[in-house]
Amino acid sequence: MQRWKEEIVQIGQFGRGDSTPIDRREQLNVEKGQQRLEGTQAIKETKGYIISRMKEIGLDVRLDAVGNIFGRREGSKTQTGAVMSGSHLDSVLSGGMFDGIVGVVSALEALRIMNDEGFANERPIELAIFTGEEGSAFKKGLLGSSVLVGHIAVDDALALQNDEGRSLRAVLDQQELRGDFQIDFDEIEYFIETHVEQGPVLDQERTPIGIVENITGITWVTAIIEGEANHAGTTPMLSRKDALVASADVASFVNKRAIEMVREFGGSTVATVGKMVVHPGAPNIVPGKVELGIDIRDGDQDHLNKLTTEIIDFIKKMEGKYGVKCSTEIPIDHPPCPCASEVVTAIEKATRQMGIKAKRMNSGAGHDAQNIAEKVKTGMLFVPSINGISHSPMEWTEWEDIEKGIQVLSLTMKTLSQLSA
Amino acid sequence: MQRWKEEIVQIGQFGRGDSTPIDRREQLNVEKGQQRLEGTQAIKETKGYIISRMKEIGLDVRLDAVGNIFGRREGSKTQTGAVMSGSHLDSVLSGGMFDGIVGVVSALEALRIMNDEGFANERPIELAIFTGEEGSAFKKGLLGSSVLVGHIAVDDALALQNDEGRSLRAVLDQQELRGDFQIDFDEIEYFIETHVEQGPVLDQERTPIGIVENITGITWVTAIIEGEANHAGTTPMLSRKDALVASADVASFVNKRAIEMVREFGGSTVATVGKMVVHPGAPNIVPGKVELGIDIRDGDQDHLNKLTTEIIDFIKKMEGKYGVKCSTEIPIDHPPCPCASEVVTAIEKATRQMGIKAKRMNSGAGHDAQNIAEKVKTGMLFVPSINGISHSPMEWTEWEDIEKGIQVLSLTMKTLSQLSA
Repeated sequence: MQRWKEEIVQIGQFGRGDSTPIDRREQLNVEKGQQRLEGTQAIKETKGYIISRMKEIGLDVRLDAVGNIFGRREGSKTQTGAVMSGSHLDSVLSGGMFDGIVGVVSALEALRIMNDEGFANERPIELAIFTGEEGSAFKKGLLGSSVLVGHIAVDDALALQNDEGRSLRAVLDQQELRGDFQIDFDEIEYFIETHVEQGPVLDQERTPIGIVENITGITWVTAIIEGEANHAGTTPMLSRKDALVASADVASFVNKRAIEMVREFGGSTVATVGKMVVHPGAPNIVPGKVELGIDIRDGDQDHLNKLTTEIIDFIKKMEGKYGVKCSTEIPIDHPPCPCASEVVTAIEKATRQMGIKAKRMNSGAGHDAQNIAEKVKTGMLFVPSINGISHSPMEWTEWEDIEKGIQVLSLTMKTLSQLSA
Repeated sequence: MQRWKEEIVQIGQFGRGDSTPIDRREQLNVEKGQQRLEGTQAIKETKGYIISRMKEIGLDVRLDAVGNIFGRREGSKTQTGAVMSGSHLDSVLSGGMFDGIVGVVSALEALRIMNDEGFANERPIELAIFTGEEGSAFKKGLLGSSVLVGHIAVDDALALQNDEGRSLRAVLDQQELRGDFQIDFDEIEYFIETHVEQGPVLDQERTPIGIVENITGITWVTAIIEGEANHAGTTPMLSRKDALVASADVASFVNKRAIEMVREFGGSTVATVGKMVVHPGAPNIVPGKVELGIDIRDGDQDHLNKLTTEIIDFIKKMEGKYGVKCSTEIPIDHPPCPCASEVVTAIEKATRQMGIKAKRMNSGAGHDAQNIAEKVKTGMLFVPSINGISHSPMEWTEWEDIEKGIQVLSLTMKTLSQLSA
C-alpha cells in the first residue's frame, strides 16, 4: 500500500475506533462515521501519528498557542517567503475519512516526493495543520486559521468550551498539543490547500482535479415570522395569520430566485432554506411562529448582495400579504475570496504538464484557505467526492484521484518553490 | 354573584391553583393556564365540587366504569326517553376556564331554573359529564363518550396510561370516581351540549348564540417527503432533491385550495399544515427529509373527500417535479356529524322566543356530542370565544353571553322535555 494511502486508512481507524474500509464497495455498507473532534482520544492519536510521520522525513515540527501544527523543510534561499500547504485533521460529528485528511496527507507526501527525488527547493516549504476547522467541538469553524489571521484573539479561542464544559486550553494542554511558535506571514509567499470537493461537479463530469478560482461568499439570513397560533378547526381560512404559509412562500422564492440567477449569470449561486422550525408544530394548530435559517452563497459579491437583498425584501412583503410580522438578521456574512491568479496558473500548468484533466471552479464550502488568503497568495486544489457526499460516513474519493491530486500538488509546490522572490 | 358564575370562577381556581380573574381586563394579564387533566388533584376537586352541587339540587348522581358522571332529575313520564345535557370538566395542559366547564355549569343551572320555577318536566332530565374529553392525560380525545358509544372497550380505556405511567383505572380508583352505572341510550331521546365556539365567528359577528348544524368531519394526512440531504454550499441548484422546497409547494397548495373551496362552495372548509419537521434542519444542509402533518375539515363529506384526494395527489406529483419520494397516511378520518333537525329547530325557536340573536353554523372542533349523536338526537349550542381564542390561558367568554346561553339551553331543554314520546 502506498504510504499516503496507509496514512489515510490509519487515520480512518483512529476516527472510527475500529477498522476502516479501504475500497468503496466496503464503504457502501459503513454506517459509523469518523469522529475526530478536537479534544477526543481519536484526534490525539491522529495528531501524534502525523507528527511522528513529519519528524521521520526530517521536518522541523512546531506547535502554536492554539495547537496549529507546522512542519518546515528549509530551502536553499532561506530568506524568501515559504510555500505552505496543508489542511485540517478534525472531523464533524459523524464524518468521512477524506475531508481535511487528504489535504494534510497530500502535503506530507509531496514533501516525501521531494526527499525521494533529492529535490532542492529554493523557498522553504511549510506543512500546516489547522486546529478545529469543522467547529464541531468548540462551535467556531475555521478556528485555528481564524486565530492565525487575527479574526479571533488567542485567549478568546483558548477560552472556548466544548459540550463537556472543557476549554480549548485545557484540552490542548492535556494532550500536549500547545506550543509557543508564532507563524509570521511575512515569511510565507504562497498557500495551497488540497481538499475533497464536497460537491458533485467533478464526479459528474469525470474530472479528477478542480482548480479553485473563488471560495464562495456566504451570507446567512435568519428570519422569524410571527403570525397567530389558532385552532385549525375553528379558525376560518380568511381569519388566519398562518406563519407557515408565509414561510412556504419564502422557501419557494429562495429556491426559484437562486435557480433563475444561475440561469441568468451562469454563476455559482446557491440558496437554501435548511432550517424551518414551526411553532407550536401540531397538525391541528395554525402555526403561530416559524424560524427560518437561510444560507446564500455566491462567488460574486454583487450577486450575493443582490440575492440577499431580494430575499430580505421578499420576507418583509409577507407582512402585507399575510398579516404576519417578520424580522431578519444576518448572523454570518463572509465575502467571496478570490484565489491568487499566480497559484491558479501554477496548478493549471501542472495539470497540463501531466496530462491530467482539470476544471476551474468555485468552492461552495468554506475552508481555512479563505482565511490564509487574507495574508498570502492562496490557491486550492479539489479532488472529486463521489456523488458529492461529504460530512457523512459515506464520503468517498477514489484512491487514483487522490494520487492525481498529490502529483499535481507536488509539481505545483515544486514550481512555486523555485520562483525567484 | 350568580351561582353559575361562582361555579365557573371556583372551578377556575381549582384549575389554576390560585385565584382566577373574574373580568376580562384581569384575564388579559394572565399567563398561567388551567390544568385540569384527569388524574390531577385539580380535577378531583372540580368533580367533587360539581357532584356536591348536583346533589344539593336533588339529582341522583351515578358514576360509570370510566368515570363518566350522570345526574338524573326524574320526569312525570318516567318511561319516556330523557333529555340529556352536559360536557366535560377536564382541560388541555395550559387551557382556559370556559372550555367544557360552560357546558356542565349551564346544564346544572338549567336544572336549577326548573327547580326555581317548579317546572314539571315530562321526560326525565340527565346531566352528563364525560371523562377525558381533551385527551391531554391519556392521549385519547373524547375518551368517556367514546366508551359510551362503544368505540373503545371499557377495559382498553381503563388500561390507558398517563405520562406518569399510571392507568386510568388506578387514577379513577384512587380518586373514588369509578362506579358501576351503565347508561342505556334507549332511555335517552335528546342530547344538547353547550360549548364555547373556540373560533372567532360569533365574536366577529357580535352574535351571542351559535346553533350547530354540523360537527365538522376531520381527516388528517401525514406525509413524509424524502429528498437528499446535501451540503448547501457545494450542491448546485439543479443537482438538488430538496425535501423542503417540495414541502413548501404542498403547504401553499393546501392553503390555496382550502380558500378556493370556501369561495366556490361557501362552506366551512379549512385545511392546515400545522406540522412540518425538517431533517436535518441546519441552515447549511439541503433538507433531506420533511414530515408533514395536515389537518383537513369540512362539514360536507364530499368536499372533505375531494380536498383530501386533491392534497394526496398533489403530494404525489412532487416526486416528478423534484425527484423526491413521497408517502402519505391517513391516521384520523372522522366523517362530518349532522345535528338532529329536531334539536336544531328547538334551539332556534328558543332564541327567537327570547329575542336573542343566533346563527346557524358548523362546529370546526370535535366534541363529545359527535359520539353521542350516533345514539340519540343531538344538538349543540355555542357561545362566543373572544377573538376565537381557546386552549389558552387567554380564553374568554363574556359573562352575559354565558347567561344568554343558559337561558336558551334551559328553554330548549324544557321544550324538548315536554314533547310527547
